[in-house]
Amino acid sequence: MIKVGIVGGTGYTGVELLRILADHPQADVRCITSRSEAGVRVADMYPNLRGHYELAFSEPDNRELAACDLVFFATPHGVAMEAVPELLAAGTRVVDLSADFRIRDLDVWARWYGMPHTSPEWAEKAVYGLPEVAREQVREARLVANPGCYPTAVQLGFLPLLENDLVDTSRLIADAKSGASGGGRQGKIPMLHGEVGESFKAYGASGHRHLPEIRQGLTDAAGSAVGVTFVPHLIPMVRGIEATLYAQLNNPSDFDRLQALFEERFRDEPFVDVMPFGSHPETRSVRGANLCRMALHRQEDSNMVIVSSVIDNLVKGAAGQAVQNMNIMFGLDERMGMASPALLP
Amino acid sequence: MIKVGIVGGTGYTGVELLRILADHPQADVRCITSRSEAGVRVADMYPNLRGHYELAFSEPDNRELAACDLVFFATPHGVAMEAVPELLAAGTRVVDLSADFRIRDLDVWARWYGMPHTSPEWAEKAVYGLPEVAREQVREARLVANPGCYPTAVQLGFLPLLENDLVDTSRLIADAKSGASGGGRQGKIPMLHGEVGESFKAYGASGHRHLPEIRQGLTDAAGSAVGVTFVPHLIPMVRGIEATLYAQLNNPSDFDRLQALFEERFRDEPFVDVMPFGSHPETRSVRGANLCRMALHRQEDSNMVIVSSVIDNLVKGAAGQAVQNMNIMFGLDERMGMASPALLP
Amino acid sequence: MIKVGIVGGTGYTGVELLRILADHPQADVRCITSRSEAGVRVADMYPNLRGHYELAFSEPDNRELAACDLVFFATPHGVAMEAVPELLAAGTRVVDLSADFRIRDLDVWARWYGMPHTSPEWAEKAVYGLPEVAREQVREARLVANPGCYPTAVQLGFLPLLENDLVDTSRLIADAKSGASGGGRQGKIPMLHGEVGESFKAYGASGHRHLPEIRQGLTDAAGSAVGVTFVPHLIPMVRGIEATLYAQLNNPSDFDRLQALFEERFRDEPFVDVMPFGSHPETRSVRGANLCRMALHRQEDSNMVIVSSVIDNLVKGAAGQAVQNMNIMFGLDERMGMASPALLP
Amino acid sequence: MIKVGIVGGTGYTGVELLRILADHPQADVRCITSRSEAGVRVADMYPNLRGHYELAFSEPDNRELAACDLVFFATPHGVAMEAVPELLAAGTRVVDLSADFRIRDLDVWARWYGMPHTSPEWAEKAVYGLPEVAREQVREARLVANPGCYPTAVQLGFLPLLENDLVDTSRLIADAKSGASGGGRQGKIPMLHGEVGESFKAYGASGHRHLPEIRQGLTDAAGSAVGVTFVPHLIPMVRGIEATLYAQLNNPSDFDRLQALFEERFRDEPFVDVMPFGSHPETRSVRGANLCRMALHRQEDSNMVIVSSVIDNLVKGAAGQAVQNMNIMFGLDERMGMASPALLP
Repeated sequence: MIKVGIVGGTGYTGVELLRILADHPQADVRCITSRSEAGVRVADMYPNLRGHYELAFSEPDNRELAACDLVFFATPHGVAMEAVPELLAAGTRVVDLSADFRIRDLDVWARWYGMPHTSPEWAEKAVYGLPEVAREQVREARLVANPGCYPTAVQLGFLPLLENDLVDTSRLIADAKSGASGGGRQGKIPMLHGEVGESFKAYGASGHRHLPEIRQGLTDAAGSAVGVTFVPHLIPMVRGIEATLYAQLNNPSDFDRLQALFEERFRDEPFVDVMPFGSHPETRSVRGANLCRMALHRQEDSNMVIVSSVIDNLVKGAAGQAVQNMNIMFGLDERMGMASPALLP
Repeated sequence: MIKVGIVGGTGYTGVELLRILADHPQADVRCITSRSEAGVRVADMYPNLRGHYELAFSEPDNRELAACDLVFFATPHGVAMEAVPELLAAGTRVVDLSADFRIRDLDVWARWYGMPHTSPEWAEKAVYGLPEVAREQVREARLVANPGCYPTAVQLGFLPLLENDLVDTSRLIADAKSGASGGGRQGKIPMLHGEVGESFKAYGASGHRHLPEIRQGLTDAAGSAVGVTFVPHLIPMVRGIEATLYAQLNNPSDFDRLQALFEERFRDEPFVDVMPFGSHPETRSVRGANLCRMALHRQEDSNMVIVSSVIDNLVKGAAGQAVQNMNIMFGLDERMGMASPALLP
Repeated sequence: MIKVGIVGGTGYTGVELLRILADHPQADVRCITSRSEAGVRVADMYPNLRGHYELAFSEPDNRELAACDLVFFATPHGVAMEAVPELLAAGTRVVDLSADFRIRDLDVWARWYGMPHTSPEWAEKAVYGLPEVAREQVREARLVANPGCYPTAVQLGFLPLLENDLVDTSRLIADAKSGASGGGRQGKIPMLHGEVGESFKAYGASGHRHLPEIRQGLTDAAGSAVGVTFVPHLIPMVRGIEATLYAQLNNPSDFDRLQALFEERFRDEPFVDVMPFGSHPETRSVRGANLCRMALHRQEDSNMVIVSSVIDNLVKGAAGQAVQNMNIMFGLDERMGMASPALLP
Repeated sequence: MIKVGIVGGTGYTGVELLRILADHPQADVRCITSRSEAGVRVADMYPNLRGHYELAFSEPDNRELAACDLVFFATPHGVAMEAVPELLAAGTRVVDLSADFRIRDLDVWARWYGMPHTSPEWAEKAVYGLPEVAREQVREARLVANPGCYPTAVQLGFLPLLENDLVDTSRLIADAKSGASGGGRQGKIPMLHGEVGESFKAYGASGHRHLPEIRQGLTDAAGSAVGVTFVPHLIPMVRGIEATLYAQLNNPSDFDRLQALFEERFRDEPFVDVMPFGSHPETRSVRGANLCRMALHRQEDSNMVIVSSVIDNLVKGAAGQAVQNMNIMFGLDERMGMASPALLP
């Protein structure tokens, strides 16, 4: 039984961790911290957990956390990099769902997140936890930087193209759309139902924090610097990300082997599903499930590869991927606790 | 391992049965029939089931169905009453999710469903499968009539009041609201997103087919004829029912013991959750879960008991309750396959 | 040309006033105040107003406001009662869209709004501006208390029954549902899309501030104290209120004349539409329009009158009714500026 | 007063024409035809029109239509090309909202619409009615082909770039998203609320009928063949299109003058609004309004021009643009009947 702690569990990522771990046969959530909600039972804050947890939020207490085998950080950026070194020193392993350890270039990190990085040593040791790329490193990792939601959907869809050097990497385009839960659970006017409901818009089109993370991942996959344009959009719904990816094929004849290549790339991946060529993945087909589902398209007289990739932003884009990383780190079946079908309709 | 068949599985109830049974350790879905979709793999129709089922829809074949231990009927009304007798004769047990066997008074049935009932003998033997009322009869039942979605939410909320003779039963009011999946998966203009989206309305306010079913259940609970007004409404969302129930207390002082009485009534029920007095159950707190969650309210200077009761119309209101009935019929843990928390947010 | 001022125009009611007045041939919005947004152009905050207004929000300035013929208050409760007396003294007329002057019994007001009332003299003189009841008083009013959204939908639907003494007034029930814009435009977690989206719930079921306002209005209509239960619900949509009203008919034979009576009651009302008996008004049928649309229902063997009444909470439930009152106060055609059909779909 | 006829008015485009024309001071709708709904009052089908129209749907009757000054066709493709020649011969002018006369290359048309074109002579004479491009030709046109919804949003956003030869036209990308009303008002399962609600997906990614129309328009603007990839997506909402457009700038220094160039291009356009650089247009900011609102973006170290362009698919994308064309054809103020602000929130 893995003793699990969660820091900062009052947001949507926190409740999602609790939901997934409630079913997990090898995880025992020992503590969940929240300064603002200390003393409140998690089931009182999230009634879907009634009958599943007696646990209450507690004040952060490093001794208690250090007694855990694994601590998830579901905190705003800037928190984990302060707290993590002490826990790691105590032998606790950490999966950080925030952005603190995702970017290797700390100047880039500091510029996008508006503060200097205070734990450069661990930023270097952290493993970027996209299991489809770094499963072996995750297995041994002390500190896993859990990928962002958009970066997960975008990287997985581009990977086979970049790893095989098939496309013009100077003009990659990722047009991504997310449900409103991606905006978090703070009382901000732009995320009100009255603002988001029955409307659609791009946001962060001049630059979003996930852009450097996407660029880093795609550059790693391509083996050289890439040019990528990333525009996120806000969908009037709660859960789900769809990313439509565009890349120009270097050699038109490669179109014939793309489908096989994608299927081969992800054949052994438990949480990536390549649909038949020309399919249209729906976000609801992965709702609540730790899954990236994708499909390829080609338009007549065109060498533009189109990939449509969907995830549940709170699962494969956050809490589910974190549990997947936990399963890998502790030598468990990677699917453990996440074998159920998505909730459709 | 229970050999399971499903008749008419292309609708929302069908895919929900498959979703729940995919996780069920004691159920093996052997066949699922659909005349219109015969030959289509269920996972091609419902991509959330990719990786969970290889099964394809098949032409209805009574030999194949009769070889099952249990057959679920997820068909429009009028189908089960024709097909069920032969299966029952062959020893197969049946849970009918349609309305065919819910109403004991077949004249009433015929009037509301617009056709004569063709299986009066089985209508008499069928057990109305609201486990919270008829668990023991369900255990032995050959044929279970699975309750309607609205009737489940409404009856459970009224039960403790009626069973204890606490309220004026001549003027019960159930104001109920449902997501659009309750309207089924047929190509009907009134159920288009363009019609349902971003709008709200009552429907069936002059009389809805669930009214006689509700009246029958409440009359049984009260022990004498009740007067009940039932108005359903359509919510611009997919899943979920909320029913607000109104009943005038006979003796104002009883207000003090209502909460305890409700908690006591459902203390051993695995799928009914009474929240603290004055709570507001949200439909999302039961999304995807086989659960009826409810709470009581009183307004100042008033003896009107207010109960707010929520279910997922496709789960506790249909497929989940059907699996609950299966679990009871086959002596399994009633929670089997349905222990996960609801999907919130 | 009526010189118009708006106090507190940054909320949904404020932008709605601006939208309606943009088309109004006899109103000229001279100033709109907001402490927090002073200096911001209204069209920068609300892009739908680009090209319609050059106006910017300004610091509240009583001289500027007093130079207006009419000032709308679209402020939280407690603001208007402080500011209004000085303006009224200066000869400016006021339509207050907040709750400050709606309740005549100031002890009741103080209890529900959690503060003492500071302008009892004007509370007495204020006219409750439901034009269908008080058109003549509105015409001469110096200060109009614009009704709340729920109270508008509920009162209009009950009026003909109460005015004609047709129903048991001891157990009136109003089950009402509103879109999320009714919750205002403040950064509150419960109103996030992530909280409201794809879910439904009752709220304020133990007591909502609109209850005493509804009770007062219904008591006036009935001529004696009424017992009314009012439960509001939150719909996952932006605009619209539906209220389903229940009242037991004293004399069953009156059912035959109800439709005619409702039609007669509202025959000359420009903004009330009685649909044919048995219709189901949709909130979208009044979206953006200053209209209350309603229909009557009866269920078999029942003497319960059911009225379904819909409004757009921001129009007939707030800004539209305020402009209607302005039109009446200034002797204009009551429809002026509000003659367009609702936006459907 | 223009005598107006509408053919095929039962769909969303039809009701939207009626909504807009209800307010139009110079248009008099004389007849609206529908074989299936003949005899039904339009206000009975679309209750938002109650009090605005006494008109009923009628059987198509060429004499009646030929007595009109202008006939709008709001029919499925294939209808107008059969019916229009006779009306035009009778001197009636026509605005066709269907696709019949949008594509000049009739082989292309036949391939995408699956039938031969039966009126090649009028296909040649028809004016493609995007007023921002062809206002003068529209003025004199006998037959206007009203542009498709996606093509309107996409062309307007690309126009200034192509007309000024600023971008690489071989790899234009238009990632577009639409609300469900764009799918029409037929009883089709994929457009049910249960299918569309709370989900998001691409569709037609391998080829959509609006692709050749977009390609034709962009080629005209560029003056030579363009390569364009167009992927539409379905948003879980009713109205609105957002198109995010991507084009690589030939000369990076041109970025500095793009904003001025866009503003200049549309300075005199009553229905195009260029927002400040870096803005994010929301679909709700044009809801119900005949407006295309757009903004430009640049990401760091990138020469990719990003344009976000929004319209209401039923207004500027269909009925509103049709009325705009009518206004131009009849020498009226182009804004007539469409001066109101959009409905936000």
